[in-house]
Amino acid sequence: MKTSPLFTDLYELTMMNGYLKAGKTEWAAFELFVRKLPKNRNYLVFAGLNDVVELLQDYRFSESDIDYLYSLKLFSDDFLDFLKNFRFTGKLYAMREGEIFFQNEPVLRVEAPIYEAQLFETAIMNQVHISSLIATKAARVFSVAKGKKLADFSLRRTHGFDAGMKVARSSYLAGFDATSNVLAGKVYGIPVVGTVAHSFIMAFESEEEAFRAYLNAFPNHGILLVDTYDTVEGVKKAIKIAKEVGIPLKGVRLDSGNVVELSKIARKLLDEAGFKETKIIVSGGLDEYSIKEILEKGAPVDAFGVGTKLGTSADSPYIDFVYKLVEFNGKPVMKTSSGKKMYPGRKQVFRNEDHDVVGVFGEELPGEPLLEKVMENGLLIKEFPSLKESREYFLERFSKLPEELKRIDRKVEYPVRISEKLKELYRKTLSEIERER
Amino acid sequence: MKTSPLFTDLYELTMMNGYLKAGKTEWAAFELFVRKLPKNRNYLVFAGLNDVVELLQDYRFSESDIDYLYSLKLFSDDFLDFLKNFRFTGKLYAMREGEIFFQNEPVLRVEAPIYEAQLFETAIMNQVHISSLIATKAARVFSVAKGKKLADFSLRRTHGFDAGMKVARSSYLAGFDATSNVLAGKVYGIPVVGTVAHSFIMAFESEEEAFRAYLNAFPNHGILLVDTYDTVEGVKKAIKIAKEVGIPLKGVRLDSGNVVELSKIARKLLDEAGFKETKIIVSGGLDEYSIKEILEKGAPVDAFGVGTKLGTSADSPYIDFVYKLVEFNGKPVMKTSSGKKMYPGRKQVFRNEDHDVVGVFGEELPGEPLLEKVMENGLLIKEFPSLKESREYFLERFSKLPEELKRIDRKVEYPVRISEKLKELYRKTLSEIERER
Repeated sequence: MKTSPLFTDLYELTMMNGYLKAGKTEWAAFELFVRKLPKNRNYLVFAGLNDVVELLQDYRFSESDIDYLYSLKLFSDDFLDFLKNFRFTGKLYAMREGEIFFQNEPVLRVEAPIYEAQLFETAIMNQVHISSLIATKAARVFSVAKGKKLADFSLRRTHGFDAGMKVARSSYLAGFDATSNVLAGKVYGIPVVGTVAHSFIMAFESEEEAFRAYLNAFPNHGILLVDTYDTVEGVKKAIKIAKEVGIPLKGVRLDSGNVVELSKIARKLLDEAGFKETKIIVSGGLDEYSIKEILEKGAPVDAFGVGTKLGTSADSPYIDFVYKLVEFNGKPVMKTSSGKKMYPGRKQVFRNEDHDVVGVFGEELPGEPLLEKVMENGLLIKEFPSLKESREYFLERFSKLPEELKRIDRKVEYPVRISEKLKELYRKTLSEIERER
Repeated sequence: MKTSPLFTDLYELTMMNGYLKAGKTEWAAFELFVRKLPKNRNYLVFAGLNDVVELLQDYRFSESDIDYLYSLKLFSDDFLDFLKNFRFTGKLYAMREGEIFFQNEPVLRVEAPIYEAQLFETAIMNQVHISSLIATKAARVFSVAKGKKLADFSLRRTHGFDAGMKVARSSYLAGFDATSNVLAGKVYGIPVVGTVAHSFIMAFESEEEAFRAYLNAFPNHGILLVDTYDTVEGVKKAIKIAKEVGIPLKGVRLDSGNVVELSKIARKLLDEAGFKETKIIVSGGLDEYSIKEILEKGAPVDAFGVGTKLGTSADSPYIDFVYKLVEFNGKPVMKTSSGKKMYPGRKQVFRNEDHDVVGVFGEELPGEPLLEKVMENGLLIKEFPSLKESREYFLERFSKLPEELKRIDRKVEYPVRISEKLKELYRKTLSEIERER
């Protein structure tokens, strides 16, 4: 979904004007990271790099953008002239989409003249935030689903169009199998799924008539919603009508009531009727907590449709990402006042079997380095992985995550160590700040 | 922000195909409402009608949309042909944007052939949901701000581009004064505001130099961020540099630390220096709870920048809107199975001084009817109010809301009564459903 370079906080533009007016054109590095994981998250999943690359590549001010900025009577004319030909000329380093990450680990770094690197702050944060938020939530659902199929059903309550697209993409990236969002199917190639709503059933004289109409319209796609009036009766009628019209009943969907009991009854009725292949699909207010409980109680569910609580990451609807200046004109810098500790300078993250180390960029340490160069001179330097490839990558990385961390009911902290060299740089930078004051 | 008709759940399209295949072209009415308010909300604010009107007016399937649907091998050819010329031909009734509403009150109703009215479910819900969610959250902030200026600073952590735009618009609608989102300024005409970030300060050799550079670049817009290193020192330096360069210090922004104490110190320093006009702006993790506390502790704050918790409605990140079939072919209908009671038929909401009544559409009852016709034959029937007009409407309606309901710390339920005629219709519909079973 395209937007405009004006999709930014005003201060990014005033600062840019201020930098240029003061002759500040030195290169700077900004890193995007999280100081502390949200209270009920043991890990985060990185996503949204596709959108960052797209926005950096396509960042162009239109004439009407410039006209609007002019109308604010805030910017100098030479600055507005400068914007007309502005484009991103810097470097982008990032983790791969689908990577697992933790506190204090930069997931991406922009290196460019400071007025440029600053400008992208808002848009980059906005895009990585929603995608990583949802990828993380989806990974938690995936971790409890024990191989059952998962579909994103959240579109009606995501926060707008763009979120709807990103929820579909990020949940697929983090282990989901499908989405109900047709546009996400078209744009991202994600499998799309769907059945019928209660209103469809209600529009017919009887439930049986509605089932008949649906099976006749979709003989290869016969999934029926059975809980409009009475769920057990609904299952019986679905069996009856499927037999009558001679069309295989692919599945029944339960969207309300005690789904543990109802799914057991439904399974029994289906099996007794010889419908052993018919799947039971459950939806309605689900999240990782309820899915875990449903499965632990032995409900014979084959697939879950997960909606609102996935699409809004309801138990933790934001992540405190920050985008901080870490180097200016070759010199490591950091902010000190808020009591929120950060480390100066450009960094690399090294993954080892049971811990990560955050080190100074360029230092050699054991483990796999996670940040790689993605763009140079404002251009992508290699082909961007497909969504399927990124999904494979997530699945492989997630399989290596210690099981203890995948618990959804307990806070477990993964060890993220700071390298000696980075600690030393922190001390040095701090003493310089104190000396200058 | 434009999207595609494929921004919908797959089942809306399969149901549409199913309706048409079964010859179901009768008119239907769907109403959008909330059964129960979220646990920490005493009222909701309706917003997003602008987007509903736009999407209903512009709903056209492109050739590539049809091609994609064809590729799914799910739909009949005549159905896909039908979609090529599809457009909305029905009626839309709705409350005005900025209206306060409660449980069981329809905020909008679509009347059209059932396959049409059904199709729009997902997109309408998606759009009204995010805008009303944020308008409600913003109204809560507005209710505790005691006339202090409020700015939306949430863009970096809203759920994507579209949410960013809607948060700016909906918060302005519900009493905010400005946004940091430049594109929202351009598109909606909302006043835009902004200062500088910590990185700007850090990019200069010293805080004083950064202040000097900023004031020189924006002599009419001199708001300085004073908490990068040490807030009290920052205020002193801001005063010193403003005096030195002879540029009025319009404001200082505090973004961290104990803002109650720090704002008192800042006010004292500013007043002593003769800077009585300089405003104190506070930001950083704010919401209605913290703003109430800050003001109750006597902090001399002039304006608040409210970010993430506004932009994600963090304490209540979704509203359980439902879009339900209430009438089919002239006959009132309702869903019964889930234990979630709903009322059948087309309705009207009547507002009285201290209670609302939900009645049958067409019945005459005391109070002001809140639903009005907005579209007919798929077209807008009168000019849509400007955002400023809707904001005025909200302010007027909100001023009439009983003060008790505006409390953010206690659940208070506003009386929503059901008219005798609607109760009777409910009983009649229920007995018919039971008879048919």
